[in-house]
Amino acid sequence: MSDSIQALTREICAFRDERDWLQFHNPREMAVAIAAEAGELLQHFVWQNAAQSESRVRERHPELASEMADIAILLLEMAANCEIDLAASIRAKLARNAERYPVEKARGSNRKYNEL
Amino acid sequence: MSDSIQALTREICAFRDERDWLQFHNPREMAVAIAAEAGELLQHFVWQNAAQSESRVRERHPELASEMADIAILLLEMAANCEIDLAASIRAKLARNAERYPVEKARGSNRKYNEL
Amino acid sequence: MSDSIQALTREICAFRDERDWLQFHNPREMAVAIAAEAGELLQHFVWQNAAQSESRVRERHPELASEMADIAILLLEMAANCEIDLAASIRAKLARNAERYPVEKARGSNRKYNEL
Amino acid sequence: MSDSIQALTREICAFRDERDWLQFHNPREMAVAIAAEAGELLQHFVWQNAAQSESRVRERHPELASEMADIAILLLEMAANCEIDLAASIRAKLARNAERYPVEKARGSNRKYNEL
Repeated sequence: MSDSIQALTREICAFRDERDWLQFHNPREMAVAIAAEAGELLQHFVWQNAAQSESRVRERHPELASEMADIAILLLEMAANCEIDLAASIRAKLARNAERYPVEKARGSNRKYNEL
Repeated sequence: MSDSIQALTREICAFRDERDWLQFHNPREMAVAIAAEAGELLQHFVWQNAAQSESRVRERHPELASEMADIAILLLEMAANCEIDLAASIRAKLARNAERYPVEKARGSNRKYNEL
Repeated sequence: MSDSIQALTREICAFRDERDWLQFHNPREMAVAIAAEAGELLQHFVWQNAAQSESRVRERHPELASEMADIAILLLEMAANCEIDLAASIRAKLARNAERYPVEKARGSNRKYNEL
Repeated sequence: MSDSIQALTREICAFRDERDWLQFHNPREMAVAIAAEAGELLQHFVWQNAAQSESRVRERHPELASEMADIAILLLEMAANCEIDLAASIRAKLARNAERYPVEKARGSNRKYNEL
């Protein structure tokens, strides 16, 4: 099966439309749901250090896959609802970040672009 | 250009590796960054009602596309780092949700599956 | 018992110190934990409309009290760790918001100060 | 001035009522606003390690005080709106956590109570 964003988005929107859920899915609600799901993902890692978080991924692989799928489903639908081309936006952002974080300055640094 | 998750993930990971950033990108940090970006997306809609949130999308289309791209970039990389097949996980979650939310019960309802 | 922030903070820090947890409570971890708890609180209200959220408060009163307590405990400790006087900061913020949101302009409006 | 939660809550609710904002402050909106503000606080610490987060607190003391005040203001008002006694809830939670995290088992450990 295709892993194109367009194909996945079509399946997500079909699921939603069979249930007549678009009425609940205004942009605000989608942003709220994304934040709540991002909070669920984060909860797996609270108080963990880096090494513990690596083992956690191994121990809770299916749950984490499911949490990430929740965020992805909402994000793909929200982009579609807002007429945003997510693949193009990702590439535009990478291009912008390439300017903000030139390789020679950003290499090996965790600083923000305005602090490089 | 392809909008496949695999192709996009490859570009995202190439960007990261040119900057030697994998050292900062353990699962925990990725989850933190996703939550922070989801918070930024949410901020556009705080105190807005549904209708206001629709106009906001029109007024701030490029900013919202950029916020959603930030979340997508982190999510695709995190899935790759955790060896999670995001497209398969999305479809697995839709299948699970189809059981939890059967069309005849869920149609037109905003209730959670355990309250249907 | 006193409901002063200072008294409550003292009890929270005593609880922490008996368990030798300060080593895990750097500012970053506290901010992560607060965001995760805020996500838990939010989850109670996802997809709810205003009226549903009012009934939810009645139905889940003890759980919501417990979620809010979690955020408060972390916030009071974080303020103490960062040597921030939370009561003074609250009053300073109210004073700043009083300038940003003058009564005559802000009355009955849900707009942000830069859009009033 | 008093730093009692009751006194601070009274000032916060007076600020709100002068602006006739209660109409916008149903529990759901309050939870959304708290999550958005927790996201803002978190943004200060993304990609930071523990040591960097300590210096960040010194460099950005007034901004962090202001972010924490934002969360506190919303939390105190939300508790009042939901008829939750926040000081009592904090103490109830500390008592529950004292059972979940007995000193002899929890001392020096960052594990969750169900993993101790």
